[in-house]
Amino acid sequence: MNTSAASASWAHEPEIRKAVEAAMETALELSDGVRGTTSPNPPVGAVILDSRGRRVGAGATQPPPGPHAEVMALREAGERARGGIAVVTLEPCSHYGRTPPCTRALLAAGIAAVRFAVSDPHPAASGGAEVLRAAGVDVEGGLLASRVAEGPLRAWLHRERTGRPHVTWKYAASLDGRIAAADGTSRWISGPTSRAEVHALRARVDAVVVGTGTVLADDPWLTVRDADGELAPRQPLRVVMGTRGIPAGARVLDSTAETVVFATHDPGEVLAGLAERGVVDVLLEGGPTVAGAFVAAGLVDRIVAYVAPTLLGAGPAALGDAGVSTITEAHRWRLEGVTMSGEDVRISAVPVTGEGGD
Amino acid sequence: MNTSAASASWAHEPEIRKAVEAAMETALELSDGVRGTTSPNPPVGAVILDSRGRRVGAGATQPPPGPHAEVMALREAGERARGGIAVVTLEPCSHYGRTPPCTRALLAAGIAAVRFAVSDPHPAASGGAEVLRAAGVDVEGGLLASRVAEGPLRAWLHRERTGRPHVTWKYAASLDGRIAAADGTSRWISGPTSRAEVHALRARVDAVVVGTGTVLADDPWLTVRDADGELAPRQPLRVVMGTRGIPAGARVLDSTAETVVFATHDPGEVLAGLAERGVVDVLLEGGPTVAGAFVAAGLVDRIVAYVAPTLLGAGPAALGDAGVSTITEAHRWRLEGVTMSGEDVRISAVPVTGEGGD
Ligand SMILES: NC(=O)c1ccc[n+]([C@@H]2O[C@H](COP(=O)([O-])OP(=O)(O)OC[C@H]3O[C@@H](n4cnc5c(N)ncnc54)[C@H](OP(=O)(O)O)[C@@H]3O)[C@@H](O)[C@H]2O)c1
Ligand SMILES: NC(=O)c1ccc[n+]([C@@H]2O[C@H](COP(=O)([O-])OP(=O)(O)OC[C@H]3O[C@@H](n4cnc5c(N)ncnc54)[C@H](OP(=O)(O)O)[C@@H]3O)[C@@H](O)[C@H]2O)c1
Repeated sequence: MNTSAASASWAHEPEIRKAVEAAMETALELSDGVRGTTSPNPPVGAVILDSRGRRVGAGATQPPPGPHAEVMALREAGERARGGIAVVTLEPCSHYGRTPPCTRALLAAGIAAVRFAVSDPHPAASGGAEVLRAAGVDVEGGLLASRVAEGPLRAWLHRERTGRPHVTWKYAASLDGRIAAADGTSRWISGPTSRAEVHALRARVDAVVVGTGTVLADDPWLTVRDADGELAPRQPLRVVMGTRGIPAGARVLDSTAETVVFATHDPGEVLAGLAERGVVDVLLEGGPTVAGAFVAAGLVDRIVAYVAPTLLGAGPAALGDAGVSTITEAHRWRLEGVTMSGEDVRISAVPVTGEGGD
Repeated sequence: MNTSAASASWAHEPEIRKAVEAAMETALELSDGVRGTTSPNPPVGAVILDSRGRRVGAGATQPPPGPHAEVMALREAGERARGGIAVVTLEPCSHYGRTPPCTRALLAAGIAAVRFAVSDPHPAASGGAEVLRAAGVDVEGGLLASRVAEGPLRAWLHRERTGRPHVTWKYAASLDGRIAAADGTSRWISGPTSRAEVHALRARVDAVVVGTGTVLADDPWLTVRDADGELAPRQPLRVVMGTRGIPAGARVLDSTAETVVFATHDPGEVLAGLAERGVVDVLLEGGPTVAGAFVAAGLVDRIVAYVAPTLLGAGPAALGDAGVSTITEAHRWRLEGVTMSGEDVRISAVPVTGEGGD
């Protein structure tokens, strides 16, 4: 078996290819597991195989200023990495940031081949593949690319492309589209499975956004808790937008997580402020007013709706004014997934064309 | 092989049982195919097998005053029915109605065994199984019973139990629960697949109900048409409820189908009037006002919602006042099916407990 870096033809043999594919599945899972903990860096997963395709190391991006995924995986592999293959969800970086470039670490470890899913669109970082190739490493990209790009790297890629955080608007509604009853009560409109899923969604984002209306009506904590009410060790930033004062005793102002208030009605201003703070992934949990403003501005990148099999017949609808007055102006989306969530239906949708609404 | 009626033990042999099961699947399909054409009689399917399990006849209920399913199947089988098995979706009737009892026809044809899905709950008709057994026929019920009872016989069984027609409330809404835009426009809120499905739904019911509001706003035909706009040979009764006059030129008053107007706001009164006319299965296609009245009265037995991936942010919600003012009073339903319908989601639900809402 030829393990020289310059001509790693062995890495193209069927059994090695199979091992690489399995390793990329693992890398994808690893990257998924660190979502919400790596911003402003991307959540990346890496697996090191030796020259016979045996897994000798694995790792994922650490919270900043910690090491990148490749470095974590190489640390575990140690000397066994020499002449082996690095399988990474994102093209290795070639620039000095908070950490030295991963290309340098891969070369220093004697890696013979690199397989990655998604190319790095970051101007300063791109070129990692070229740097490695120039050093004689066998490099291929594109493996599981769309699953990685639509999955763990979606928000980060969106931020790289647009400069603004990715926004998922999540809401829970009755079958007839109401998010609260006529008297404003809305507690547990969706079932326990959906509520648990919302906490899992929160755990994967950098910030949760609501309007003052939701704070004043529901006094929510907006924290990540488990089924027993235990707080998760890491909490997303809590963000309130609106001009009214928030009572000092509001739960959103307690000490369990950081909270920032934007005294504005402009979603763009809020997202710019969050981008400055390194926020990449946002969960919009506001009421119909704030949701309408985001939709109207084309700043919602994904919808996750929990529709409960209940009928209310009165009460606020999920979405307030979004600039539509006649049917031909309707905002058009594309269904991405429809699944059961306990007794509820979970519907996710993405804009029909390009980024951020239609 | 023993083909005497008194002890049809051969009919319990594995290969015959298998043939009977396949025959019941066929009978179910046949009954499904005549939905909407048999009221006030139930849509029933029947298959005749000879004593070796070979299919020798099949049929379904004919429009009244035509023959029942068993008679149609026996006619096709002729002499080959003698000593054979009748496989029927509903227990054969034993009473004189518009037609002589089916039990008599089965005995006259020399049928040795009868297999049926659902027992006849009709007081005057029940006893068919007993009459046959007393005559020495080997009788068993319950095969595919729940699929038949929840499928083609659902509406008829409901009418037998409650005395009122079965009501399916169908609506098309945006993802945010609106059935029209702010200016009242609603044309094609759902996609072509869903619209075609609605025509298929209409083709299977006896009557379509709307309020004057829908007639005045949309001027709908409420007829069954194919993709080219061709009218189906059979049309359901068109029903309008409300006190306002309908313009003489309204499409709902054209000659393509029969139309009846109930100058009332009481859903119970409408259903009673329809029951008198022999209506068993109703599709409620009214707007939020009429839908709210039916839901509030507990008179909706199934919901079929087509949810399009569009956002409106304004306009009427699917359901108007249904007597709910706080979240604990919400009408609770159970999801029955969630499927894709072209670009839309089709959600069907049934009341959580018993009949007609909660
Ligand atoms: N079921 C669910 O998924 C869900 C989720 C959230 C909320 N809710 C329900 O929604 C209801 C609250 O609705 P809501 O619309 O008041 O909540 P909201 O959208 O969270 O807050 C609205 C408030 O935020 C401020 N605001 C921020 N951006 C704005 C803009 N672009 N335009 C206008 N105002 C803006 C305004 O307050 P200022 O005057 O302070 O500026 C406004 O009154 C409650 O009943 C709550 O239970 C339900
Ligand atoms: N997307 C869909 O699935 C769908 C389906 C149907 C309608 N729509 C839309 O719905 C809108 C029309 O809504 P709508 O609520 O006016 O339609 P509707 O419910 O069909 O008709 C309401 C009218 O019916 C009469 N009525 C009958 N029973 C009543 C009761 N129990 N209580 C009060 N009034 C009763 C009243 O008129 P009188 O004064 O004459 O008694 C009332 O104004 C239109 O924009 C239409 O496009 C959408």
